[in-house]
Amino acid sequence: MIKAQNLVAGQWQDNLKASTFHTLNPITNKPLPTQFQEASSSQIHDALIKASTIYESYASTSFKVRIEFLQSIQKELNKSSNDILKTYQEESALPSPRAEGEFQRTIDQIQRYIELLEEGTFIQPKINTSGPDLRKILYPIGPIAVFGASNFPLAFSTAGGDTISVLASGCPLIVKAHPYHAGTSALVAEAILKAISYCGLPKEIFSHLGGVSHRIGGELVSHPLLKGVGFTGSLSGGKALYDLAQKREEPIPVFAEMGSVNPILITEKRLLTDKNLSETLANSIAQGTGQFCTNPGMIILCDPQGISKITSKVIDHLSKMILPPMVHINIEKNYLLQLDKLQENEAVKLVRTSSSNSAIGVVSAEDVLKNKKLTEEIFGPFSLFVECKSMNQLKDLVKIIPGQLTATILAHKDDHSELVPLVTQLKNKVGRLLFEGVPTGVAVNQAMQHGGPYPASTDGRYTSIGTDAIYRWLRPITFQDCPNTLLPPILQNENPLKIYRLINGQLTKDTL
Amino acid sequence: MIKAQNLVAGQWQDNLKASTFHTLNPITNKPLPTQFQEASSSQIHDALIKASTIYESYASTSFKVRIEFLQSIQKELNKSSNDILKTYQEESALPSPRAEGEFQRTIDQIQRYIELLEEGTFIQPKINTSGPDLRKILYPIGPIAVFGASNFPLAFSTAGGDTISVLASGCPLIVKAHPYHAGTSALVAEAILKAISYCGLPKEIFSHLGGVSHRIGGELVSHPLLKGVGFTGSLSGGKALYDLAQKREEPIPVFAEMGSVNPILITEKRLLTDKNLSETLANSIAQGTGQFCTNPGMIILCDPQGISKITSKVIDHLSKMILPPMVHINIEKNYLLQLDKLQENEAVKLVRTSSSNSAIGVVSAEDVLKNKKLTEEIFGPFSLFVECKSMNQLKDLVKIIPGQLTATILAHKDDHSELVPLVTQLKNKVGRLLFEGVPTGVAVNQAMQHGGPYPASTDGRYTSIGTDAIYRWLRPITFQDCPNTLLPPILQNENPLKIYRLINGQLTKDTL
Repeated sequence: MIKAQNLVAGQWQDNLKASTFHTLNPITNKPLPTQFQEASSSQIHDALIKASTIYESYASTSFKVRIEFLQSIQKELNKSSNDILKTYQEESALPSPRAEGEFQRTIDQIQRYIELLEEGTFIQPKINTSGPDLRKILYPIGPIAVFGASNFPLAFSTAGGDTISVLASGCPLIVKAHPYHAGTSALVAEAILKAISYCGLPKEIFSHLGGVSHRIGGELVSHPLLKGVGFTGSLSGGKALYDLAQKREEPIPVFAEMGSVNPILITEKRLLTDKNLSETLANSIAQGTGQFCTNPGMIILCDPQGISKITSKVIDHLSKMILPPMVHINIEKNYLLQLDKLQENEAVKLVRTSSSNSAIGVVSAEDVLKNKKLTEEIFGPFSLFVECKSMNQLKDLVKIIPGQLTATILAHKDDHSELVPLVTQLKNKVGRLLFEGVPTGVAVNQAMQHGGPYPASTDGRYTSIGTDAIYRWLRPITFQDCPNTLLPPILQNENPLKIYRLINGQLTKDTL
Repeated sequence: MIKAQNLVAGQWQDNLKASTFHTLNPITNKPLPTQFQEASSSQIHDALIKASTIYESYASTSFKVRIEFLQSIQKELNKSSNDILKTYQEESALPSPRAEGEFQRTIDQIQRYIELLEEGTFIQPKINTSGPDLRKILYPIGPIAVFGASNFPLAFSTAGGDTISVLASGCPLIVKAHPYHAGTSALVAEAILKAISYCGLPKEIFSHLGGVSHRIGGELVSHPLLKGVGFTGSLSGGKALYDLAQKREEPIPVFAEMGSVNPILITEKRLLTDKNLSETLANSIAQGTGQFCTNPGMIILCDPQGISKITSKVIDHLSKMILPPMVHINIEKNYLLQLDKLQENEAVKLVRTSSSNSAIGVVSAEDVLKNKKLTEEIFGPFSLFVECKSMNQLKDLVKIIPGQLTATILAHKDDHSELVPLVTQLKNKVGRLLFEGVPTGVAVNQAMQHGGPYPASTDGRYTSIGTDAIYRWLRPITFQDCPNTLLPPILQNENPLKIYRLINGQLTKDTL
């Protein structure tokens, strides 16, 4: 049974006066049965008040308690997997393999945080005894709001990477569920609630609020008791939340991952020798009907002789693919509108396929250099192919490209020695720099960086994928000359968790 | 010879049309001879353009090169120490031991960064080979502006903790010198310039701009090529820069350390048994004529019986102290104005000493609970003593105290078991929590945290003292499937720097 209510500080609260909304089946565009209630202002306030009251108690829980909690969430998700997957597919129209893959990714992401807590050094204990006894550790910052993403109903939503990083960090969590998959989110919220109950944790650590109105996000981010925000979505949405957060009496961090065009740069030699290139690119452009934040929206070719047939080959591949609809009619409408606008630009040759909404544009580097707007993202199964006459022109183009989540250099082995200046240039632009493969598909581990210089993210110093995402919700605190018994266990003389600590500049598992 | 000009991208530029200003001797309040030039808009622009052009080259320098650079700065400072100390004392009127102590602290701070670069793990290399080959490292973010602080002409100014953390990180540096000690700053800038020249580094990595007008800071922070800001000073100054930075097309981080009242909380048993308490407190209040960011501006006493004589004893001690003047007449005027305002508050008993400008206020906890404004900082040799009738009232008071750099709990051994709730409460409020001693005096090492929740700092997740300050100027970048030769050396298979790296979740010095 899908809950139509809002979960406020661990309690499903009915509100018969609430505005309501439905989710749509993207294949039929017909509303699904559940009549969801929008969160009211008083429910938002209530969630924050209670999260704030319980914060210190949850922040002080041991890693062991949090590990059991995350394991319980995994169990409860697995128990409800049939219902969750059924609703996921009804609400997103994404095919079974994707649904199952994303479900498993969600379980795996939780597992990475379990391992992180088991290993323990992420909390960065630092001890110095050369003067006063100083012991530093990371500490949870307070109640956090996470906005579910439209394009990943599971892996970037109610039990997704952002939210699990919050719960693992020891911060109370308020989820603003994405209205396009409110049912999937409600089922996942129910699973988290059961895990809270099973572990005997205070239920106030979790709220799950729904709605289509921007009011809800605005009230959440402006609430004085909120301490941080995670968001994945559009530049306009992320920037609006960021600006709201900066206008508060106490500004708070907003980690908005706002996507980018993830340029793929291809050298001449690679372009002319890689037989699989067109298929690889077409698959990456079409993956998830182009609804990945790492979708390659710009492919920059170094083709001085103008002899590559890559664009027509990519179109051939795309034309053979039947793609599922986009996850919501509004996203599709916006995508098609942007394509129509692009078509008005005479510098761009737009080629659409008849098999789906996929398309590519072809444009010269000169024209992009003249019109920086062409470097902006068109969210969907589309990529702009930019033709360069030389590596120097390609480097000029890189200069005007704004901050990106990723960039990919596809070169031939013989090119490597000449790539140094390009690599140096791109390091300044991206969070992740690839030298093989495609940017879609983002591994979840400590070496991942998913976040780049603005406008890819509001704060490129942090990642939203991979376990380093936990650092968004932690800040350092130093204890000076603190009695051993009053210290957090990790900082106590005995090193009870037996983890690496930086003692007087040296990493060691020693006791003191 | 003190340079009156601005140092723009490594060149002293004369500008005869510039507005000019003088520094004052705080004892005589007479202007010192040098007629300093204010930086012009075009000089600011020039400094940023050139810093930005040289950024990638400086960012790619090895730790070895940066170590030699920092060592050269130490040498050049030592060579000029006589001139620097003479000008320091003329401009600040701070006594010789303080001048020499601060000079040595400046040298020592640089040494800590040399050691950090020698050890190397701060750069956080993380490698994962379970899927695609991912290698993550921290990378400098770009040109940084640092605003010199009024209260530390050396240790928080041109070669202070903020600026050295920038140079150690690999970011180009633009110093906005504090106009109250422009001569000291210019001499230090000259020493840094000599070190740049000696090491053969590009001189564009360093600019040193002066002026009294807010225009200069505003233009710097608004410049599109600037990537970050360090500031130590008032809440109004720091917040103004922060707001400017958030209004840019590309928002950038501003690390403003804006001071706080650093409450000292004293239990009844400690209050009645610690014979040295009044002297310890008086010394801390008066240290540096109260011009330390960790000055204890609020002392909260648990005195249910009302029998402690601590306030009169503190006044006795303060009355015996002859304090040097504050570092500038404007700071003193502002301090005295705030005391006058406080005197109008009937709830506060204000006691001034006749030997200096030092003073204390005495107020009941009830009155502070009624008037939150009393928790705001009065910058100078002053502390507000707040009398509580119980530990519960003390805890109520803690609830309304805003974010702080530090808090100190002075308790008796017998109290420890009862302190847990208070410790939990304070962890949420401060960057550093002390259990002995006084907050003034801030050790420089990796376990230090100097930065607390807003409004103590604009970003309590970072520190401005201790080598972790370097993290303000770094962001992660991940290389995926990168040819070994194109990787930064630290990430290469051979581990050429032989430092600890996190490989597949395990810390190791192994090669790959």
